[in-house]
Amino acid sequence: MTNEDGGVSSSEQSMKARYELSRRIAHDTMAPIRQIAQLIEIFKAEHADSLDEDAQVILGMVQDKTRQLSEMTQAVRAYSDAMCKPLALQEANFAAALSTEIESLQFETVLFKRENSISVTADPQFLRQFIQRLLRSIPFDVAKEQSAELVLSVCHDEASAAHIRLDFSPCSIDFSEKLQLSELAQYKSGDLFELLCLHECSEICLRHGWALYMEKNGDDVLRVNICL
Amino acid sequence: MTNEDGGVSSSEQSMKARYELSRRIAHDTMAPIRQIAQLIEIFKAEHADSLDEDAQVILGMVQDKTRQLSEMTQAVRAYSDAMCKPLALQEANFAAALSTEIESLQFETVLFKRENSISVTADPQFLRQFIQRLLRSIPFDVAKEQSAELVLSVCHDEASAAHIRLDFSPCSIDFSEKLQLSELAQYKSGDLFELLCLHECSEICLRHGWALYMEKNGDDVLRVNICL
Repeated sequence: MTNEDGGVSSSEQSMKARYELSRRIAHDTMAPIRQIAQLIEIFKAEHADSLDEDAQVILGMVQDKTRQLSEMTQAVRAYSDAMCKPLALQEANFAAALSTEIESLQFETVLFKRENSISVTADPQFLRQFIQRLLRSIPFDVAKEQSAELVLSVCHDEASAAHIRLDFSPCSIDFSEKLQLSELAQYKSGDLFELLCLHECSEICLRHGWALYMEKNGDDVLRVNICL
Repeated sequence: MTNEDGGVSSSEQSMKARYELSRRIAHDTMAPIRQIAQLIEIFKAEHADSLDEDAQVILGMVQDKTRQLSEMTQAVRAYSDAMCKPLALQEANFAAALSTEIESLQFETVLFKRENSISVTADPQFLRQFIQRLLRSIPFDVAKEQSAELVLSVCHDEASAAHIRLDFSPCSIDFSEKLQLSELAQYKSGDLFELLCLHECSEICLRHGWALYMEKNGDDVLRVNICL
C-alpha cells in the first residue's frame, strides 16, 4: 500500500467515500431540522388557546429559521453532489439539454438560436445542473429586455478541441479581459445560494475537464466559451 | 485558458475557493441555528408563568435538537477544513505532537514509549487534528486496560521512504489482512461524529501524501503504519 498503487482507482474510491459521507451528513442534518419543525407544529396545536400574539410571532420566526436551514441544507447537498457524486458519463446533446432548460425557465422574450445537435460527453444529470446554474448565474436580465437573444454555436478551431459558445445579448456588465466563472460573483448580490450556483458550475466543469471563460463580443454581447 | 495552463496554481486556486465557500456555508448555517436557540430562550423567559410541564418538555426538546445541529455543523466544518483549508507545511516533530495529545487525553494507564524526535513535513494544525482523530478512531480501550501500551517508532526500510509505526496493545479487534482507515468504521458504532473522525484522518493523510494502513503484529498488537 503505497501512494503509487493504482492511482485512479484509489481516487475513485475516495470520491465514493466522500459522496457516501456527504449523503450521510445531509441526512443526519435534515433529521433534527425536521424534528424542530414538527415540535413547533405540535406546540402551536396543543397551546393554540393560550398563545398570545407575541408568542405566535416568536414561534413564526422559529419556523422561518427552520425553513431557511432546510433550504440551505438542500442547496449545500446539491453542491456537494457536484463535487463528489460519481459520474455516469455518456454521449449527450448539449443543444437539446439547453433547450429544455430554457423552456422550463419560460424565457418568453428570448430568441434562442441553436444548432440542432452539439455532442458532449457528460453525465446527463450534471449537464442539466450545470446549464441550470449557468443560466441563473449569468447577469442576463430577461425580464427587463424585450428583445434578448441567446445564440448557441459550436466552434472547431485550429487547436482541434471543440468549444461551445453561448452569446447572451444584450449584456449590461462591463469588463475588458476574460472573466472566469468565480469572478461573476462580483456582479451578484453575494447571497449563499448564488455562490453555491457559481461553485456548482465550476465543480461540474472541473470534473468533466471543461474550461469555461467569458468575454465581451462587441459592446453588448456576453460570450460564454466552454472548451470541451 | 486551457486545462493544461498552470495545473498546480489553478488547483490551489480552486482549493482556496472551496475553503472560502465552506467557511461561508458554516457561518451562514450557524446564524439561524443560533437565532432559533435565542428565540426559544426569549420565549421561555417571556412566558415562564404560563408554560405547563408539557410545554416545557417540548421546548426542551427543541433546544436539544438545536444543540445537536450546532455540534454537527462544527464537526462538519472541521471535516471540510481537513479537505480544503490551505496547508502551511513546515518541519514538525511527530513524537512531540503525539506526546502532547496523549497527555491531554489523560491516558494514565498507558505506558507510552517513544523516540525523541520523528521529523515530518506537515501543517502543525493538521498534524494535531490527525493525531487526535487517529487516537479517537483506534479501538484501543484504555479505560478497561490496566496495562495498555503505546509504542511509537520510526522505520527506514529498503524502499527508502521512512515510515512511522504506532503499536497499540492490547488490541481486541481481529482481522487477518491489512486494514485501511475507512475499514475501521465496521468496529465503531457508526455515528456521524465517528465517521467524520475517520474521514478527517484519511483526508489529512491524502493531502500530506501519507499512506496509512493497519496490521496485526502478533495476537494482541494493532500496528498503525504511516508511510511518509
